[in-house]
Amino acid sequence: MSRSISKLVLLGTGLISGSFALALKRARLVSEVVGVGRNPANLARAIELRVIDVASHDAAEAVKDADLVFLGTPVGQMSELMMQIAPHLSPTCIVTDGGSTKQDVCALYRQCLPNQLAYCVPGHPIAGSDLSGASAATYGLYEGRRTVLTPLAETSAEALAMVRALWQACGATVYEMDAKTHDGVFAAVSHVPHLVSFAYMNAVLGKDNSGQCLDFAGTGFRDFTRIAGSHPEMWRDITLANREAILSDLRANVAQLQGLISLIETGQSAELTEYINQASQARSSWGKKR
Amino acid sequence: MSRSISKLVLLGTGLISGSFALALKRARLVSEVVGVGRNPANLARAIELRVIDVASHDAAEAVKDADLVFLGTPVGQMSELMMQIAPHLSPTCIVTDGGSTKQDVCALYRQCLPNQLAYCVPGHPIAGSDLSGASAATYGLYEGRRTVLTPLAETSAEALAMVRALWQACGATVYEMDAKTHDGVFAAVSHVPHLVSFAYMNAVLGKDNSGQCLDFAGTGFRDFTRIAGSHPEMWRDITLANREAILSDLRANVAQLQGLISLIETGQSAELTEYINQASQARSSWGKKR
Repeated sequence: MSRSISKLVLLGTGLISGSFALALKRARLVSEVVGVGRNPANLARAIELRVIDVASHDAAEAVKDADLVFLGTPVGQMSELMMQIAPHLSPTCIVTDGGSTKQDVCALYRQCLPNQLAYCVPGHPIAGSDLSGASAATYGLYEGRRTVLTPLAETSAEALAMVRALWQACGATVYEMDAKTHDGVFAAVSHVPHLVSFAYMNAVLGKDNSGQCLDFAGTGFRDFTRIAGSHPEMWRDITLANREAILSDLRANVAQLQGLISLIETGQSAELTEYINQASQARSSWGKKR
Repeated sequence: MSRSISKLVLLGTGLISGSFALALKRARLVSEVVGVGRNPANLARAIELRVIDVASHDAAEAVKDADLVFLGTPVGQMSELMMQIAPHLSPTCIVTDGGSTKQDVCALYRQCLPNQLAYCVPGHPIAGSDLSGASAATYGLYEGRRTVLTPLAETSAEALAMVRALWQACGATVYEMDAKTHDGVFAAVSHVPHLVSFAYMNAVLGKDNSGQCLDFAGTGFRDFTRIAGSHPEMWRDITLANREAILSDLRANVAQLQGLISLIETGQSAELTEYINQASQARSSWGKKR
Protein backbone atom coordinates (compact mmCIF):
# COMPACT_ATOMS: atom_id res chain seq x y z
CA MET A 1 0.00 0.00 0.00
CA SER A 2 1.33 3.40 -0.89
CA ARG A 3 1.12 6.21 1.66
CA SER A 4 -1.21 8.24 -0.52
CA ILE A 5 -4.95 7.88 -0.75
CA SER A 6 -6.88 7.92 -3.99
CA LYS A 7 -10.27 8.26 -2.35
CA LEU A 8 -10.94 9.41 1.19
CA VAL A 9 -14.53 9.30 2.42
CA LEU A 10 -15.65 11.38 5.39
CA LEU A 11 -18.74 9.97 7.09
CA GLY A 12 -19.82 13.14 8.82
CA THR A 13 -18.27 16.28 7.36
CA GLY A 14 -17.35 18.60 10.19
CA LEU A 15 -14.52 20.19 12.12
CA ILE A 16 -12.62 16.98 12.94
CA SER A 17 -13.01 15.08 9.67
CA GLY A 18 -12.75 18.23 7.55
CA SER A 19 -9.52 19.35 9.20
CA PHE A 20 -8.10 15.84 8.68
CA ALA A 21 -8.98 16.06 4.97
CA LEU A 22 -7.55 19.57 4.57
CA ALA A 23 -4.24 18.63 6.22
CA LEU A 24 -3.90 15.53 4.01
CA LYS A 25 -4.69 17.55 0.90
CA ARG A 26 -2.04 20.08 1.80
CA ALA A 27 0.43 17.21 2.30
CA ARG A 28 -0.59 15.92 -1.16
CA LEU A 29 -1.50 12.57 0.37
CA VAL A 30 -5.05 12.41 -0.91
CA SER A 31 -6.50 12.80 -4.40
CA GLU A 32 -10.25 12.87 -3.91
CA VAL A 33 -12.29 13.61 -0.79
CA VAL A 34 -15.95 12.61 -0.65
CA GLY A 35 -17.97 14.14 2.14
CA VAL A 36 -21.10 12.40 3.41
CA GLY A 37 -23.59 14.19 5.61
CA ARG A 38 -27.24 14.88 6.29
CA ASN A 39 -27.07 18.66 6.10
CA PRO A 40 -27.01 19.87 2.45
CA ALA A 41 -26.01 23.43 3.41
CA ASN A 42 -23.03 22.15 5.38
CA LEU A 43 -21.94 19.91 2.48
CA ALA A 44 -22.31 22.80 0.01
CA ARG A 45 -20.14 24.94 2.25
CA ALA A 46 -17.59 22.11 2.51
CA ILE A 47 -17.31 22.02 -1.29
CA GLU A 48 -17.11 25.79 -1.52
CA LEU A 49 -14.24 25.81 1.01
CA ARG A 50 -12.56 22.88 -0.84
CA VAL A 51 -12.70 20.74 2.30
CA ILE A 52 -14.30 18.05 0.10
CA ASP A 53 -14.46 17.51 -3.66
CA VAL A 54 -17.73 15.61 -3.84
CA ALA A 55 -20.77 15.63 -1.57
CA SER A 56 -23.06 12.68 -0.93
CA HIS A 57 -25.92 11.75 1.32
CA ASP A 58 -25.44 8.04 0.65
CA ALA A 59 -22.72 6.44 2.76
CA ALA A 60 -23.07 3.00 1.09
CA GLU A 61 -22.59 4.45 -2.39
CA ALA A 62 -19.82 6.82 -1.31
CA VAL A 63 -17.50 4.20 0.19
CA LYS A 64 -17.27 2.12 -2.99
CA ASP A 65 -13.61 2.08 -4.14
CA ALA A 66 -12.54 4.10 -1.11
CA ASP A 67 -9.02 3.54 0.30
CA LEU A 68 -9.85 5.16 3.61
CA VAL A 69 -13.07 5.87 5.45
CA PHE A 70 -13.05 8.33 8.33
CA LEU A 71 -15.97 8.21 10.75
CA GLY A 72 -16.32 11.79 11.97
CA THR A 73 -19.82 11.72 13.44
CA PRO A 74 -20.77 11.55 17.11
CA VAL A 75 -20.24 8.00 18.36
CA GLY A 76 -24.01 7.48 18.61
CA GLN A 77 -24.32 7.60 14.81
CA MET A 78 -21.41 5.28 14.03
CA SER A 79 -23.18 1.96 14.43
CA GLU A 80 -25.75 2.71 11.74
CA LEU A 81 -23.11 4.05 9.37
CA MET A 82 -20.86 1.02 9.86
CA MET A 83 -23.75 -1.31 9.08
CA GLN A 84 -24.64 0.69 5.96
CA ILE A 85 -21.11 0.62 4.57
CA ALA A 86 -20.13 -2.95 5.59
CA PRO A 87 -21.30 -4.69 2.37
CA HIS A 88 -19.70 -2.03 0.14
CA LEU A 89 -16.16 -1.71 1.48
CA SER A 90 -13.27 -2.97 -0.60
CA PRO A 91 -11.46 -5.75 1.33
CA THR A 92 -8.43 -3.55 2.06
CA CYS A 93 -10.21 -0.29 2.75
CA ILE A 94 -9.03 1.18 6.06
CA VAL A 95 -11.73 2.39 8.41
CA THR A 96 -10.78 4.82 11.15
CA ASP A 97 -12.60 7.32 13.34
CA GLY A 98 -12.27 10.37 15.57
CA GLY A 99 -14.50 9.28 18.43
CA SER A 100 -13.57 10.57 21.87
CA THR A 101 -14.42 7.30 23.64
CA LYS A 102 -12.79 4.11 22.41
CA GLN A 103 -14.05 0.97 24.18
CA ASP A 104 -17.53 1.53 22.76
CA VAL A 105 -16.22 2.30 19.27
CA CYS A 106 -14.01 -0.80 19.35
CA ALA A 107 -17.09 -2.84 20.25
CA LEU A 108 -18.95 -1.31 17.28
CA TYR A 109 -16.14 -2.26 14.86
CA ARG A 110 -16.34 -5.86 16.12
CA GLN A 111 -20.09 -5.95 15.90
CA CYS A 112 -20.67 -4.14 12.58
CA LEU A 113 -17.51 -4.76 10.56
CA PRO A 114 -16.38 -8.27 11.63
CA ASN A 115 -14.81 -9.00 8.23
CA GLN A 116 -12.87 -5.74 8.09
CA LEU A 117 -11.16 -5.83 11.51
CA ALA A 118 -7.60 -6.07 10.12
CA TYR A 119 -8.25 -2.69 8.50
CA CYS A 120 -10.04 -1.00 11.40
CA VAL A 121 -7.94 1.55 13.28
CA PRO A 122 -9.81 3.23 16.15
CA GLY A 123 -8.45 6.71 16.84
CA HIS A 124 -8.92 9.88 18.84
CA PRO A 125 -7.35 13.16 17.72
CA ILE A 126 -6.98 15.42 20.78
CA ALA A 127 -8.04 18.69 19.26
CA GLY A 128 -11.18 20.68 19.18
CA SER A 129 -12.69 24.08 18.99
CA ASP A 130 -15.74 25.89 20.24
CA LEU A 131 -16.82 25.90 16.60
CA SER A 132 -18.22 23.00 14.64
CA GLY A 133 -19.24 22.12 11.10
CA ALA A 134 -17.28 22.00 7.86
CA SER A 135 -16.80 25.77 7.83
CA ALA A 136 -14.77 25.47 11.05
CA ALA A 137 -12.29 23.01 9.50
CA THR A 138 -8.72 24.31 9.26
CA TYR A 139 -5.46 23.04 7.74
CA GLY A 140 -3.57 23.43 11.01
CA LEU A 141 -5.96 21.98 13.58
CA TYR A 142 -3.70 19.02 14.33
CA GLU A 143 -0.32 20.78 14.18
CA GLY A 144 1.53 20.02 17.40
CA ARG A 145 -1.44 18.15 18.84
CA ARG A 146 -1.75 14.50 19.87
CA THR A 147 -3.64 11.64 18.31
CA VAL A 148 -4.22 8.42 20.22
CA LEU A 149 -4.72 5.19 18.29
CA THR A 150 -6.22 2.19 20.07
CA PRO A 151 -5.71 -0.69 17.64
CA LEU A 152 -7.74 -3.88 17.93
CA ALA A 153 -5.93 -7.18 18.43
CA GLU A 154 -6.87 -7.89 14.80
CA THR A 155 -5.68 -4.57 13.38
CA SER A 156 -2.88 -5.24 10.88
CA ALA A 157 0.51 -3.60 11.32
CA GLU A 158 0.12 -2.28 7.79
CA ALA A 159 -3.19 -0.46 8.45
CA LEU A 160 -1.95 0.88 11.76
CA ALA A 161 1.25 2.22 10.15
CA MET A 162 -0.79 3.87 7.41
CA VAL A 163 -3.11 5.72 9.80
CA ARG A 164 -0.18 6.65 12.02
CA ALA A 165 1.65 8.12 9.02
CA LEU A 166 -1.40 10.12 7.96
CA TRP A 167 -1.80 11.70 11.40
CA GLN A 168 1.89 12.50 11.46
CA ALA A 169 1.47 14.18 8.09
CA CYS A 170 -1.26 16.31 9.73
CA GLY A 171 1.35 17.49 12.23
CA ALA A 172 0.16 15.34 15.15
CA THR A 173 2.23 13.19 17.49
CA VAL A 174 0.76 9.71 17.56
CA TYR A 175 0.40 7.56 20.69
CA GLU A 176 -0.87 4.02 21.00
CA MET A 177 -2.67 2.56 23.99
CA ASP A 178 -5.40 0.02 24.55
CA ALA A 179 -8.97 1.31 24.50
CA LYS A 180 -9.57 0.76 28.20
CA THR A 181 -6.48 2.75 29.17
CA HIS A 182 -7.53 5.49 26.76
CA ASP A 183 -10.98 5.73 28.30
CA GLY A 184 -9.56 5.82 31.82
CA VAL A 185 -7.12 8.60 30.93
CA PHE A 186 -9.75 10.75 29.24
CA ALA A 187 -12.30 10.14 31.97
CA ALA A 188 -9.74 11.54 34.40
CA VAL A 189 -8.57 14.60 32.49
CA SER A 190 -11.52 15.50 30.30
CA HIS A 191 -14.84 13.78 31.00
CA VAL A 192 -14.88 14.10 34.79
CA PRO A 193 -13.77 17.77 34.80
CA HIS A 194 -16.73 18.50 32.53
CA LEU A 195 -19.13 16.65 34.83
CA VAL A 196 -17.73 18.26 37.99
CA SER A 197 -18.10 21.63 36.30
CA PHE A 198 -21.73 20.89 35.33
CA ALA A 199 -22.45 19.75 38.91
CA TYR A 200 -20.83 22.88 40.34
CA MET A 201 -22.96 25.15 38.09
CA ASN A 202 -26.09 23.29 39.16
CA ALA A 203 -25.10 23.66 42.82
CA VAL A 204 -24.81 27.44 42.36
CA LEU A 205 -28.16 27.50 40.55
CA GLY A 206 -29.68 25.71 43.54
CA LYS A 207 -28.84 28.58 45.87
CA ASP A 208 -31.54 31.06 46.90
CA ASN A 209 -29.36 33.97 45.81
CA SER A 210 -27.82 32.35 42.73
CA GLY A 211 -28.38 35.49 40.61
CA GLN A 212 -26.54 37.66 43.10
CA CYS A 213 -23.73 35.10 43.31
CA LEU A 214 -23.30 35.00 39.54
CA ASP A 215 -23.20 38.82 39.45
CA PHE A 216 -20.02 38.74 41.52
CA ALA A 217 -18.34 35.81 39.81
CA GLY A 218 -14.92 36.68 38.45
CA THR A 219 -12.06 35.24 36.44
CA GLY A 220 -11.56 32.15 38.63
CA PHE A 221 -15.20 31.21 38.14
CA ARG A 222 -14.96 32.03 34.45
CA ASP A 223 -12.11 29.60 33.79
CA PHE A 224 -13.33 26.90 36.19
CA THR A 225 -16.74 26.79 34.50
CA ARG A 226 -15.75 27.37 30.87
CA ILE A 227 -16.26 23.68 30.07
CA ALA A 228 -19.67 23.73 31.79
CA GLY A 229 -20.91 25.56 28.68
CA SER A 230 -20.29 22.45 26.55
CA HIS A 231 -22.81 20.76 24.29
CA PRO A 232 -25.40 18.76 26.30
CA GLU A 233 -26.11 15.90 23.83
CA MET A 234 -22.44 15.39 23.05
CA TRP A 235 -21.55 15.19 26.74
CA ARG A 236 -24.50 12.95 27.55
CA ASP A 237 -23.23 10.55 24.88
CA ILE A 238 -19.66 10.64 26.11
CA THR A 239 -20.80 10.17 29.70
CA LEU A 240 -22.95 7.14 28.96
CA ALA A 241 -20.36 5.68 26.58
CA ASN A 242 -17.59 5.84 29.16
CA ARG A 243 -19.79 5.17 32.14
CA GLU A 244 -17.58 2.82 34.18
CA ALA A 245 -14.40 4.88 34.13
CA ILE A 246 -16.37 8.07 34.76
CA LEU A 247 -18.31 6.64 37.69
CA SER A 248 -15.13 5.41 39.29
CA ASP A 249 -13.52 8.86 39.02
CA LEU A 250 -16.67 10.71 40.12
CA ARG A 251 -16.82 8.52 43.22
CA ALA A 252 -13.15 9.33 43.87
CA ASN A 253 -14.01 13.03 43.60
CA VAL A 254 -16.84 12.66 46.11
CA ALA A 255 -14.43 10.90 48.48
CA GLN A 256 -11.90 13.74 48.04
CA LEU A 257 -14.55 16.35 48.81
CA GLN A 258 -15.71 14.41 51.85
CA GLY A 259 -12.12 14.20 53.12
CA LEU A 260 -11.70 17.93 52.54
CA ILE A 261 -14.98 18.70 54.33
CA SER A 262 -13.76 16.74 57.31
CA LEU A 263 -10.41 18.65 57.37
CA ILE A 264 -12.35 21.94 57.37
CA GLU A 265 -14.92 20.79 59.95
CA THR A 266 -12.22 19.82 62.39
CA GLY A 267 -10.09 22.88 61.55
CA GLN A 268 -6.98 20.84 60.79
CA SER A 269 -4.89 23.75 59.59
CA ALA A 270 -1.60 21.97 58.87
CA GLU A 271 -3.33 19.09 57.06
CA LEU A 272 -5.44 21.54 55.07
CA THR A 273 -2.34 23.46 54.01
CA GLU A 274 -0.71 20.20 52.94
CA TYR A 275 -3.87 19.17 51.07
CA ILE A 276 -3.93 22.42 49.09
CA ASN A 277 -0.16 22.40 48.66
CA GLN A 278 -0.20 18.96 47.04
CA ALA A 279 -2.79 20.10 44.50
CA SER A 280 -1.09 23.43 43.90
CA GLN A 281 2.37 21.93 43.38
CA ALA A 282 1.00 19.35 40.96
CA ARG A 283 -0.91 21.95 38.97
CA SER A 284 2.08 24.29 38.84
CA SER A 285 4.48 21.62 37.64
CA TRP A 286 1.94 20.49 35.03
CA GLY A 287 1.65 24.10 33.87
CA LYS A 288 5.42 24.49 33.58
CA LYS A 289 5.71 21.39 31.38
CA ARG A 290 3.26 22.95 28.90
CA MET B 1 -14.23 65.83 55.86
CA SER B 2 -12.82 66.71 52.47
CA ARG B 3 -12.54 64.02 49.82
CA SER B 4 -8.78 64.22 49.73
CA ILE B 5 -6.38 62.50 52.06
CA SER B 6 -3.33 64.16 53.56
CA LYS B 7 -1.81 60.95 54.85
CA LEU B 8 -2.67 57.46 53.69
CA VAL B 9 -1.03 54.55 55.54
CA LEU B 10 -0.80 51.13 53.95
CA LEU B 11 -0.42 48.34 56.49
CA GLY B 12 1.04 45.75 54.19
CA THR B 13 2.46 47.18 50.98
CA GLY B 14 1.56 44.91 48.12
CA LEU B 15 -0.52 44.50 44.97
CA ILE B 16 -3.90 45.42 46.49
CA SER B 17 -2.89 48.28 48.79
CA GLY B 18 -0.25 49.59 46.38
CA SER B 19 -2.68 49.72 43.46
CA PHE B 20 -5.19 51.55 45.67
CA ALA B 21 -2.50 54.13 46.55
CA LEU B 22 -1.37 54.54 42.94
CA ALA B 23 -4.92 55.12 41.70
CA LEU B 24 -5.60 57.70 44.42
CA LYS B 25 -2.33 59.48 43.65
CA ARG B 26 -3.24 59.65 39.98
CA ALA B 27 -6.64 61.09 40.96
CA ARG B 28 -4.79 63.66 43.12
CA LEU B 29 -6.77 62.54 46.15
CA VAL B 30 -3.83 61.73 48.38
CA SER B 31 -0.80 63.79 49.37
CA GLU B 32 1.44 61.39 51.27
CA VAL B 33 1.49 57.60 51.25
CA VAL B 34 3.29 55.74 54.03
CA GLY B 35 3.93 52.06 53.42
CA VAL B 36 4.39 49.69 56.33
CA GLY B 37 5.77 46.22 55.82
CA ARG B 38 8.16 43.58 57.10
CA ASN B 39 10.16 43.12 53.91
CA PRO B 40 12.71 45.96 53.45
CA ALA B 41 13.42 45.02 49.81
CA ASN B 42 9.72 45.22 48.97
CA LEU B 43 9.40 48.61 50.69
CA ALA B 44 12.49 49.92 48.88
CA ARG B 45 11.00 48.81 45.59
CA ALA B 46 7.68 50.48 46.53
CA ILE B 47 9.50 53.80 47.06
CA GLU B 48 11.49 53.39 43.85
CA LEU B 49 8.24 52.80 41.90
CA ARG B 50 6.58 55.76 43.71
CA VAL B 51 3.86 53.49 45.08
CA ILE B 52 4.67 54.97 48.51
CA ASP B 53 6.51 58.10 49.63
CA VAL B 54 7.77 56.88 53.00
CA ALA B 55 8.55 53.39 54.25
CA SER B 56 8.15 52.21 57.82
CA HIS B 57 8.33 48.99 59.77
CA ASP B 58 6.44 50.49 62.71
CA ALA B 59 2.66 50.49 62.24
CA ALA B 60 1.97 52.33 65.54
CA GLU B 61 4.29 55.19 64.63
CA ALA B 62 3.13 55.31 61.01
CA VAL B 63 -0.58 55.78 61.70
CA LYS B 64 -0.13 58.94 63.81
CA ASP B 65 -1.93 61.81 62.04
CA ALA B 66 -3.20 59.49 59.31
CA ASP B 67 -6.56 60.29 57.67
CA LEU B 68 -6.93 56.81 56.25
CA VAL B 69 -5.42 53.45 57.10
CA PHE B 70 -5.70 50.61 54.59
CA LEU B 71 -5.12 47.09 55.90
CA GLY B 72 -3.67 45.23 52.94
CA THR B 73 -2.20 42.17 54.64
CA PRO B 74 -3.62 38.65 54.73
CA VAL B 75 -6.53 38.57 57.18
CA GLY B 76 -4.45 36.46 59.59
CA GLN B 77 -2.14 39.43 60.25
CA MET B 78 -4.86 42.05 60.73
CA SER B 79 -5.66 41.40 64.39
CA GLU B 80 -2.11 42.13 65.56
CA LEU B 81 -1.89 45.24 63.39
CA MET B 82 -5.23 46.59 64.62
CA MET B 83 -4.14 46.15 68.23
CA GLN B 84 -0.82 47.88 67.53
CA ILE B 85 -2.43 50.91 65.93
CA ALA B 86 -5.51 51.25 68.19
CA PRO B 87 -3.95 53.63 70.75
CA HIS B 88 -2.38 55.83 68.05
CA LEU B 89 -5.26 56.53 65.67
CA SER B 90 -6.71 60.01 65.48
CA PRO B 91 -10.40 59.88 66.51
CA THR B 92 -11.63 60.46 62.95
CA CYS B 93 -9.10 58.33 61.09
CA ILE B 94 -10.87 55.96 58.73
CA VAL B 95 -9.73 52.34 58.80
CA THR B 96 -10.54 50.12 55.86
CA ASP B 97 -9.19 46.88 54.42
CA GLY B 98 -9.00 44.65 51.38
CA GLY B 99 -9.65 41.30 53.03
CA SER B 100 -11.43 38.69 50.93
CA THR B 101 -13.56 37.39 53.82
CA LYS B 102 -15.64 39.86 55.76
CA GLN B 103 -17.43 38.33 58.76
CA ASP B 104 -14.10 37.56 60.40
CA VAL B 105 -12.66 40.99 59.62
CA CYS B 106 -15.80 42.69 60.98
CA ALA B 107 -15.32 40.70 64.18
CA LEU B 108 -11.70 41.88 64.37
CA TYR B 109 -12.73 45.53 64.04
CA ARG B 110 -15.17 45.08 66.92
CA GLN B 111 -12.63 43.29 69.04
CA CYS B 112 -9.54 45.39 68.36
CA LEU B 113 -10.88 48.87 67.51
CA PRO B 114 -14.01 49.22 69.64
CA ASN B 115 -13.62 53.01 69.94
CA GLN B 116 -13.09 53.52 66.19
CA LEU B 117 -16.09 51.63 64.82
CA ALA B 118 -17.81 54.70 63.34
CA TYR B 119 -14.73 55.07 61.14
CA CYS B 120 -14.22 51.40 60.26
CA VAL B 121 -15.27 50.47 56.70
CA PRO B 122 -14.69 46.78 55.88
CA GLY B 123 -14.12 46.30 52.16
CA HIS B 124 -13.23 43.80 49.47
CA PRO B 125 -11.93 44.94 46.09
CA ILE B 126 -12.63 42.19 43.54
CA ALA B 127 -9.39 42.29 41.62
CA GLY B 128 -6.25 40.30 41.66
CA SER B 129 -3.36 39.05 39.69
CA ASP B 130 -1.06 36.06 39.63
CA LEU B 131 1.61 38.52 40.77
CA SER B 132 2.06 39.93 44.23
CA GLY B 133 4.16 42.51 46.07
CA ALA B 134 4.54 46.23 45.62
CA SER B 135 6.22 45.80 42.25
CA ALA B 136 3.00 44.27 40.90
CA ALA B 137 0.91 47.33 41.85
CA THR B 138 -0.61 49.17 38.90
CA TYR B 139 -2.61 52.38 38.44
CA GLY B 140 -5.42 50.64 36.61
CA LEU B 141 -5.97 47.48 38.67
CA TYR B 142 -9.43 48.61 39.80
CA GLU B 143 -10.64 50.18 36.55
CA GLY B 144 -13.99 48.65 35.68
CA ARG B 145 -13.79 46.22 38.61
CA ARG B 146 -16.07 45.88 41.63
CA THR B 147 -15.49 46.71 45.26
CA VAL B 148 -17.82 45.41 47.94
CA LEU B 149 -18.17 47.36 51.20
CA THR B 150 -19.72 45.63 54.20
CA PRO B 151 -20.27 48.47 56.70
CA LEU B 152 -20.77 47.73 60.38
CA ALA B 153 -23.97 48.90 62.06
CA GLU B 154 -21.76 51.52 63.73
CA THR B 155 -20.03 52.73 60.55
CA SER B 156 -20.89 56.40 60.00
CA ALA B 157 -22.48 57.54 56.76
CA GLU B 158 -19.63 59.99 56.40
CA ALA B 159 -16.86 57.36 56.60
CA LEU B 160 -18.76 55.03 54.28
CA ALA B 161 -19.27 57.81 51.72
CA MET B 162 -15.59 58.68 51.86
CA VAL B 163 -14.38 55.12 51.21
CA ARG B 164 -17.02 54.68 48.52
CA ALA B 165 -15.82 57.87 46.78
CA LEU B 166 -12.20 56.74 46.94
CA TRP B 167 -12.95 53.40 45.31
CA GLN B 168 -15.00 55.14 42.65
CA ALA B 169 -12.02 57.41 42.02
CA CYS B 170 -9.99 54.21 41.47
CA GLY B 171 -12.42 53.29 38.70
CA ALA B 172 -14.35 50.66 40.66
CA THR B 173 -18.10 50.22 40.96
CA VAL B 174 -19.00 50.02 44.62
CA TYR B 175 -21.57 47.63 46.10
CA GLU B 176 -22.77 47.36 49.66
CA MET B 177 -23.97 44.21 51.37
CA ASP B 178 -23.83 42.76 54.85
CA ALA B 179 -20.78 40.68 55.70
CA LYS B 180 -22.65 37.39 55.90
CA THR B 181 -24.15 37.85 52.44
CA HIS B 182 -20.72 38.80 51.11
CA ASP B 183 -19.16 35.65 52.53
CA GLY B 184 -21.94 33.46 51.12
CA VAL B 185 -21.59 34.98 47.64
CA PHE B 186 -17.81 34.57 47.56
CA ALA B 187 -17.94 31.08 48.99
CA ALA B 188 -20.19 30.16 46.06
CA VAL B 189 -18.29 31.80 43.20
CA SER B 190 -14.71 31.88 44.40
CA HIS B 191 -13.83 29.86 47.50
CA VAL B 192 -15.66 26.64 46.64
CA PRO B 193 -14.46 26.54 43.01
CA HIS B 194 -10.90 26.71 44.36
CA LEU B 195 -11.56 23.88 46.82
CA VAL B 196 -13.32 21.71 44.21
CA SER B 197 -10.38 22.29 41.89
CA PHE B 198 -7.87 21.30 44.62
CA ALA B 199 -9.93 18.18 45.37
CA TYR B 200 -10.10 17.27 41.69
CA MET B 201 -6.29 17.59 41.31
CA ASN B 202 -5.80 15.37 44.37
CA ALA B 203 -8.23 12.82 42.94
CA VAL B 204 -6.16 12.66 39.73
CA LEU B 205 -2.97 12.36 41.78
CA GLY B 206 -4.52 9.41 43.60
CA LYS B 207 -4.81 7.39 40.39
CA ASP B 208 -2.28 4.65 39.64
CA ASN B 209 -1.56 6.19 36.23
CA SER B 210 -1.78 9.85 37.23
CA GLY B 211 1.38 10.73 35.28
CA GLN B 212 -0.01 9.23 32.09
CA CYS B 213 -3.32 11.02 32.67
CA LEU B 214 -1.63 14.40 33.11
CA ASP B 215 0.39 13.81 29.92
CA PHE B 216 -2.86 13.80 27.94
CA ALA B 217 -4.60 16.65 29.75
CA GLY B 218 -5.65 19.42 27.37
CA THR B 219 -7.19 22.87 27.35
CA GLY B 220 -10.34 21.88 29.28
CA PHE B 221 -8.20 20.54 32.10
CA ARG B 222 -5.93 23.58 31.90
CA ASP B 223 -8.74 26.07 32.49
CA PHE B 224 -10.66 23.94 34.98
CA THR B 225 -7.57 23.54 37.17
CA ARG B 226 -5.96 26.97 36.76
CA ILE B 227 -7.15 28.03 40.21
CA ALA B 228 -5.82 24.79 41.73
CA GLY B 229 -2.36 26.37 41.37
CA SER B 230 -3.26 29.03 43.96
CA HIS B 231 -1.29 29.88 47.09
CA PRO B 232 -1.73 27.21 49.82
CA GLU B 233 -1.46 29.40 52.95
CA MET B 234 -3.71 32.09 51.52
CA TRP B 235 -6.38 29.54 50.63
CA ARG B 236 -6.08 27.72 53.93
CA ASP B 237 -6.74 31.06 55.67
CA ILE B 238 -9.72 31.93 53.48
CA THR B 239 -11.14 28.43 53.92
CA LEU B 240 -10.94 28.46 57.68
CA ALA B 241 -12.12 32.09 57.89
CA ASN B 242 -15.24 31.39 55.82
CA ARG B 243 -15.76 27.87 57.09
CA GLU B 244 -19.53 27.78 57.53
CA ALA B 245 -20.51 29.15 54.12
CA ILE B 246 -17.87 27.00 52.45
CA LEU B 247 -18.94 23.80 54.21
CA SER B 248 -22.53 24.40 53.24
CA ASP B 249 -21.61 24.82 49.57
CA LEU B 250 -19.15 21.92 49.57
CA ARG B 251 -21.89 19.66 50.94
CA ALA B 252 -24.22 20.93 48.20
CA ASN B 253 -21.54 20.01 45.65
CA VAL B 254 -21.24 16.50 47.08
CA ALA B 255 -25.02 16.15 46.85
CA GLN B 256 -24.95 17.32 43.21
CA LEU B 257 -22.24 14.80 42.35
CA GLN B 258 -24.14 12.01 44.09
CA GLY B 259 -27.28 12.91 42.13
CA LEU B 260 -25.26 12.92 38.92
CA ILE B 261 -23.67 9.57 39.76
CA SER B 262 -27.12 8.11 40.23
CA LEU B 263 -28.33 9.48 36.85
CA ILE B 264 -25.33 7.85 35.18
CA GLU B 265 -25.62 4.55 37.09
CA THR B 266 -29.23 4.15 36.05
CA GLY B 267 -28.55 5.39 32.51
CA GLN B 268 -31.27 8.07 32.64
CA SER B 269 -30.43 9.61 29.29
CA ALA B 270 -33.14 12.30 29.12
CA GLU B 271 -32.57 13.42 32.71
CA LEU B 272 -28.80 13.48 32.14
CA THR B 273 -29.26 15.66 29.06
CA GLU B 274 -31.47 18.00 31.04
CA TYR B 275 -28.95 18.07 33.90
CA ILE B 276 -26.13 19.07 31.55
CA ASN B 277 -28.37 21.42 29.62
CA GLN B 278 -29.30 23.39 32.73
CA ALA B 279 -25.63 23.91 33.60
CA SER B 280 -24.65 24.68 30.01
CA GLN B 281 -27.44 27.23 29.49
CA ALA B 282 -26.62 28.98 32.76
CA ARG B 283 -22.92 29.14 31.94
CA SER B 284 -23.57 30.39 28.42
CA SER B 285 -25.90 33.16 29.53
CA TRP B 286 -23.44 34.19 32.25
CA GLY B 287 -20.69 34.33 29.61
CA LYS B 288 -22.81 36.48 27.30
CA LYS B 289 -23.46 39.02 30.06
CA ARG B 290 -19.70 39.53 30.49
